[in-house]
Amino acid sequence: MTDRLPGDEEAAVLLANASFYQAFSDGDFAAMSALWAKRAAITCLHPGARGLFGRAPVLSSWEQILAGTRVPMRCDRPVVRVVGTAALVTCYEANGDAPAHLAATNVFALEEGTWRMIHHQAGPLMSPVPPPSAPTSVN
Amino acid sequence: MTDRLPGDEEAAVLLANASFYQAFSDGDFAAMSALWAKRAAITCLHPGARGLFGRAPVLSSWEQILAGTRVPMRCDRPVVRVVGTAALVTCYEANGDAPAHLAATNVFALEEGTWRMIHHQAGPLMSPVPPPSAPTSVN
Repeated sequence: MTDRLPGDEEAAVLLANASFYQAFSDGDFAAMSALWAKRAAITCLHPGARGLFGRAPVLSSWEQILAGTRVPMRCDRPVVRVVGTAALVTCYEANGDAPAHLAATNVFALEEGTWRMIHHQAGPLMSPVPPPSAPTSVN
Repeated sequence: MTDRLPGDEEAAVLLANASFYQAFSDGDFAAMSALWAKRAAITCLHPGARGLFGRAPVLSSWEQILAGTRVPMRCDRPVVRVVGTAALVTCYEANGDAPAHLAATNVFALEEGTWRMIHHQAGPLMSPVPPPSAPTSVN
Protein backbone atom coordinates (compact mmCIF):
# COMPACT_ATOMS: atom_id res chain seq x y z
CA MET A 1 0.00 0.00 0.00
CA THR A 2 2.80 2.40 0.88
CA ASP A 3 3.96 2.93 -2.70
CA ARG A 4 0.50 3.89 -3.92
CA LEU A 5 -0.59 7.50 -4.31
CA PRO A 6 -3.63 8.96 -2.52
CA GLY A 7 -6.75 8.03 -4.50
CA ASP A 8 -5.09 4.90 -5.84
CA GLU A 9 -6.85 2.74 -3.27
CA GLU A 10 -10.27 4.09 -4.22
CA ALA A 11 -9.47 3.39 -7.88
CA ALA A 12 -8.28 -0.12 -7.02
CA VAL A 13 -11.47 -0.80 -5.05
CA LEU A 14 -13.63 0.47 -7.91
CA LEU A 15 -11.72 -1.84 -10.25
CA ALA A 16 -12.39 -4.79 -7.93
CA ASN A 17 -16.03 -3.76 -7.78
CA ALA A 18 -16.22 -3.54 -11.58
CA SER A 19 -14.65 -6.99 -11.88
CA PHE A 20 -17.51 -8.38 -9.78
CA TYR A 21 -20.10 -7.03 -12.24
CA GLN A 22 -17.97 -8.16 -15.19
CA ALA A 23 -17.79 -11.72 -13.84
CA PHE A 24 -21.55 -11.58 -13.23
CA SER A 25 -22.24 -10.36 -16.78
CA ASP A 26 -19.82 -12.86 -18.33
CA GLY A 27 -21.21 -15.80 -16.34
CA ASP A 28 -17.54 -16.36 -15.39
CA PHE A 29 -17.48 -18.45 -12.23
CA ALA A 30 -13.67 -18.73 -12.13
CA ALA A 31 -13.38 -14.92 -12.11
CA MET A 32 -16.19 -14.66 -9.54
CA SER A 33 -14.47 -17.21 -7.31
CA ALA A 34 -11.11 -15.41 -7.61
CA LEU A 35 -12.41 -12.01 -6.56
CA TRP A 36 -13.93 -13.18 -3.26
CA ALA A 37 -11.60 -13.28 -0.23
CA LYS A 38 -9.71 -16.51 0.36
CA ARG A 39 -8.78 -16.04 4.02
CA ALA A 40 -11.37 -13.64 5.42
CA ALA A 41 -14.85 -14.90 6.26
CA ILE A 42 -17.29 -13.99 3.49
CA THR A 43 -21.04 -13.41 3.53
CA CYS A 44 -23.73 -12.72 0.96
CA LEU A 45 -27.29 -11.44 1.22
CA HIS A 46 -28.94 -12.10 -2.15
CA PRO A 47 -32.21 -10.17 -2.75
CA GLY A 48 -34.97 -11.62 -0.57
CA ALA A 49 -32.88 -14.61 0.52
CA ARG A 50 -31.51 -15.72 3.88
CA GLY A 51 -27.87 -14.91 4.52
CA LEU A 52 -25.07 -17.13 3.25
CA PHE A 53 -22.03 -17.44 5.52
CA GLY A 54 -18.67 -18.86 4.43
CA ARG A 55 -16.89 -19.45 1.16
CA ALA A 56 -18.57 -22.77 0.23
CA PRO A 57 -22.22 -21.63 0.45
CA VAL A 58 -21.51 -18.17 -0.99
CA LEU A 59 -19.62 -19.50 -4.01
CA SER A 60 -22.07 -22.34 -4.51
CA SER A 61 -24.84 -19.72 -4.80
CA TRP A 62 -22.84 -17.83 -7.45
CA GLU A 63 -22.11 -21.03 -9.34
CA GLN A 64 -25.87 -21.66 -9.56
CA ILE A 65 -26.64 -18.05 -10.52
CA LEU A 66 -23.95 -17.92 -13.20
CA ALA A 67 -24.99 -21.29 -14.63
CA GLY A 68 -28.46 -19.86 -15.32
CA THR A 69 -29.50 -17.46 -18.05
CA ARG A 70 -26.72 -14.95 -18.65
CA VAL A 71 -27.75 -11.49 -17.47
CA PRO A 72 -25.65 -8.41 -18.28
CA MET A 73 -25.41 -6.68 -14.91
CA ARG A 74 -24.64 -2.95 -14.83
CA CYS A 75 -23.29 -1.10 -11.77
CA ASP A 76 -24.53 2.51 -11.66
CA ARG A 77 -23.33 5.41 -9.49
CA PRO A 78 -20.76 3.52 -7.41
CA VAL A 79 -19.71 5.41 -4.29
CA VAL A 80 -16.47 4.19 -2.69
CA ARG A 81 -14.96 4.66 0.74
CA VAL A 82 -11.69 3.18 1.95
CA VAL A 83 -11.29 2.65 5.72
CA GLY A 84 -7.78 1.32 6.29
CA THR A 85 -7.64 -2.22 4.93
CA ALA A 86 -11.40 -2.39 4.31
CA ALA A 87 -13.48 -0.65 1.67
CA LEU A 88 -17.15 -0.13 0.98
CA VAL A 89 -18.95 0.47 -2.31
CA THR A 90 -22.63 1.33 -2.61
CA CYS A 91 -24.27 1.33 -6.04
CA TYR A 92 -27.37 0.54 -8.04
CA GLU A 93 -27.61 -2.65 -10.09
CA ALA A 94 -29.38 -2.94 -13.43
CA ASN A 95 -29.80 -5.46 -16.26
CA GLY A 96 -28.58 -4.34 -19.66
CA ASP A 97 -29.97 -0.90 -20.53
CA ALA A 98 -32.89 -1.07 -18.11
CA PRO A 99 -33.24 1.30 -15.14
CA ALA A 100 -31.61 -0.02 -11.96
CA HIS A 101 -33.88 -2.29 -9.91
CA LEU A 102 -31.55 -3.11 -7.01
CA ALA A 103 -29.48 -1.17 -4.46
CA ALA A 104 -26.27 -2.86 -3.36
CA THR A 105 -23.55 -2.81 -0.73
CA ASN A 106 -20.20 -4.40 -1.58
CA VAL A 107 -17.50 -4.71 1.08
CA PHE A 108 -13.85 -5.46 0.31
CA ALA A 109 -10.75 -6.27 2.37
CA LEU A 110 -7.13 -5.93 1.36
CA GLU A 111 -5.77 -9.48 1.16
CA GLU A 112 -2.23 -10.15 -0.10
CA GLY A 113 -2.19 -6.64 -1.60
CA THR A 114 -5.44 -7.22 -3.51
CA TRP A 115 -8.90 -5.86 -2.76
CA ARG A 116 -11.10 -8.92 -2.42
CA MET A 117 -14.85 -9.01 -1.76
CA ILE A 118 -15.93 -10.09 1.72
CA HIS A 119 -19.63 -9.18 1.59
CA HIS A 120 -22.40 -8.41 -0.89
CA GLN A 121 -25.98 -7.36 -0.24
CA ALA A 122 -28.51 -6.43 -2.90
CA GLY A 123 -32.12 -5.44 -2.29
CA PRO A 124 -34.99 -4.28 -4.50
CA LEU A 125 -35.70 -0.61 -5.23
CA MET A 126 -39.36 0.42 -5.04
CA SER A 127 -38.89 2.78 -8.00
CA PRO A 128 -36.35 1.93 -10.73
CA VAL A 129 -33.45 4.38 -10.99
CA PRO A 130 -32.49 5.44 -14.56
CA PRO A 131 -28.83 5.30 -15.67
CA PRO A 132 -26.90 8.51 -14.89
CA SER A 133 -26.67 9.42 -18.57
CA ALA A 134 -30.37 8.97 -19.29
CA PRO A 135 -32.15 12.18 -20.34
CA THR A 136 -34.54 13.41 -17.66
CA SER A 137 -37.95 14.88 -18.37
CA VAL A 138 -38.32 18.65 -18.02
CA ASN A 139 -42.01 18.30 -17.23
CA MET B 1 -6.95 -0.22 20.41
CA THR B 2 -3.59 -1.52 21.67
CA ASP B 3 -4.73 -2.04 25.24
CA ARG B 4 -7.72 -4.13 24.25
CA LEU B 5 -7.68 -7.93 24.31
CA PRO B 6 -8.40 -10.06 21.22
CA GLY B 7 -12.16 -10.32 20.80
CA ASP B 8 -12.72 -6.99 22.52
CA GLU B 9 -13.14 -5.22 19.19
CA GLU B 10 -15.83 -7.67 18.05
CA ALA B 11 -17.64 -7.15 21.36
CA ALA B 12 -17.33 -3.36 21.01
CA VAL B 13 -18.73 -3.50 17.47
CA LEU B 14 -21.64 -5.68 18.59
CA LEU B 15 -22.34 -3.15 21.34
CA ALA B 16 -22.36 -0.32 18.78
CA ASN B 17 -24.65 -2.41 16.59
CA ALA B 18 -26.99 -3.08 19.53
CA SER B 19 -27.08 0.64 20.34
CA PHE B 20 -28.37 1.30 16.81
CA TYR B 21 -31.34 -1.03 17.36
CA GLN B 22 -31.87 0.36 20.86
CA ALA B 23 -32.03 3.94 19.52
CA PHE B 24 -34.40 2.72 16.79
CA SER B 25 -36.66 0.97 19.32
CA ASP B 26 -36.59 3.92 21.74
CA GLY B 27 -37.31 6.49 19.01
CA ASP B 28 -34.22 8.24 20.40
CA PHE B 29 -32.93 10.57 17.70
CA ALA B 30 -30.13 12.01 19.87
CA ALA B 31 -28.74 8.52 20.43
CA MET B 32 -29.18 7.67 16.74
CA SER B 33 -27.37 10.84 15.73
CA ALA B 34 -24.51 10.15 18.17
CA LEU B 35 -23.81 6.64 16.91
CA TRP B 36 -23.29 7.63 13.25
CA ALA B 37 -19.80 8.77 12.24
CA LYS B 38 -19.05 12.46 12.57
CA ARG B 39 -16.04 12.71 10.25
CA ALA B 40 -16.35 9.78 7.84
CA ALA B 41 -18.82 9.97 4.96
CA ILE B 42 -22.00 8.08 5.81
CA THR B 43 -24.57 6.36 3.60
CA CYS B 44 -27.89 4.61 4.10
CA LEU B 45 -29.96 2.32 1.91
CA HIS B 46 -33.41 2.07 3.52
CA PRO B 47 -35.60 -0.80 2.25
CA GLY B 48 -36.77 -0.04 -1.29
CA ALA B 49 -35.50 3.54 -1.22
CA ARG B 50 -32.82 5.36 -3.19
CA GLY B 51 -29.49 5.78 -1.43
CA LEU B 52 -28.85 8.59 1.03
CA PHE B 53 -25.35 10.08 0.99
CA GLY B 54 -23.96 12.34 3.72
CA ARG B 55 -24.79 13.10 7.31
CA ALA B 56 -27.61 15.62 6.70
CA PRO B 57 -29.83 13.44 4.46
CA VAL B 58 -29.10 10.24 6.40
CA LEU B 59 -29.91 11.76 9.80
CA SER B 60 -32.90 13.63 8.41
CA SER B 61 -34.32 10.27 7.27
CA TRP B 62 -33.82 8.83 10.74
CA GLU B 63 -35.41 11.87 12.37
CA GLN B 64 -38.52 11.28 10.24
CA ILE B 65 -38.55 7.53 10.90
CA LEU B 66 -38.12 7.95 14.67
CA ALA B 67 -40.78 10.68 14.81
CA GLY B 68 -43.32 8.17 13.44
CA THR B 69 -44.98 5.29 15.24
CA ARG B 70 -42.51 3.72 17.65
CA VAL B 71 -41.50 0.28 16.46
CA PRO B 72 -39.49 -2.08 18.69
CA MET B 73 -36.75 -3.29 16.33
CA ARG B 74 -35.00 -6.56 17.13
CA CYS B 75 -31.60 -7.58 15.72
CA ASP B 76 -31.33 -11.36 15.27
CA ARG B 77 -28.26 -13.50 14.58
CA PRO B 78 -25.69 -10.70 14.25
CA VAL B 79 -22.46 -11.84 12.61
CA VAL B 80 -19.48 -9.52 13.15
CA ARG B 81 -16.17 -9.14 11.36
CA VAL B 82 -13.48 -6.59 12.20
CA VAL B 83 -11.10 -5.58 9.39
CA GLY B 84 -8.56 -3.17 10.90
CA THR B 85 -10.39 0.08 11.68
CA ALA B 86 -13.58 -0.99 9.91
CA ALA B 87 -16.16 -3.56 10.94
CA LEU B 88 -19.12 -5.26 9.36
CA VAL B 89 -22.24 -6.72 10.96
CA THR B 90 -24.88 -8.72 9.10
CA CYS B 91 -28.13 -9.57 10.83
CA TYR B 92 -31.87 -10.00 10.49
CA GLU B 93 -34.25 -7.27 11.63
CA ALA B 94 -37.65 -7.89 13.19
CA ASN B 95 -40.43 -5.94 14.91
CA GLY B 96 -41.23 -6.98 18.45
CA ASP B 97 -41.72 -10.74 18.71
CA ALA B 98 -42.48 -11.23 14.99
CA PRO B 99 -40.23 -13.26 12.70
CA ALA B 100 -37.54 -11.18 11.00
CA HIS B 101 -38.70 -9.52 7.78
CA LEU B 102 -35.47 -7.72 6.79
CA ALA B 103 -31.82 -8.65 6.21
CA ALA B 104 -29.30 -5.94 7.06
CA THR B 105 -25.70 -4.88 6.61
CA ASN B 106 -24.23 -2.45 9.12
CA VAL B 107 -20.74 -1.04 8.59
CA PHE B 108 -18.73 0.73 11.29
CA ALA B 109 -15.46 2.68 11.43
CA LEU B 110 -13.28 3.36 14.44
CA GLU B 111 -13.49 7.12 15.02
CA GLU B 112 -11.83 8.71 18.05
CA GLY B 113 -11.62 5.25 19.64
CA THR B 114 -15.33 4.60 19.17
CA TRP B 115 -17.03 2.30 16.65
CA ARG B 116 -19.40 4.54 14.74
CA MET B 117 -21.80 3.56 11.96
CA ILE B 118 -20.85 4.62 8.44
CA HIS B 119 -23.39 2.59 6.43
CA HIS B 120 -26.68 0.74 6.82
CA GLN B 121 -28.61 -1.28 4.27
CA ALA B 122 -31.79 -3.21 4.98
CA GLY B 123 -33.79 -5.19 2.45
CA PRO B 124 -36.88 -7.41 2.61
CA LEU B 125 -36.71 -11.18 3.16
CA MET B 126 -38.99 -13.25 0.92
CA SER B 127 -39.68 -15.65 3.80
CA PRO B 128 -39.70 -14.36 7.40
CA VAL B 129 -36.94 -15.80 9.61
CA PRO B 130 -38.05 -16.88 13.12
CA PRO B 131 -36.06 -15.74 16.17
CA PRO B 132 -33.15 -18.08 17.06
CA SER B 133 -34.90 -19.31 20.21
CA ALA B 134 -38.23 -20.08 18.51
CA PRO B 135 -39.13 -23.77 18.53
CA THR B 136 -38.89 -25.31 15.08
CA SER B 137 -41.38 -27.79 13.70
CA VAL B 138 -40.27 -31.43 13.52
CA ASN B 139 -42.65 -32.06 10.63
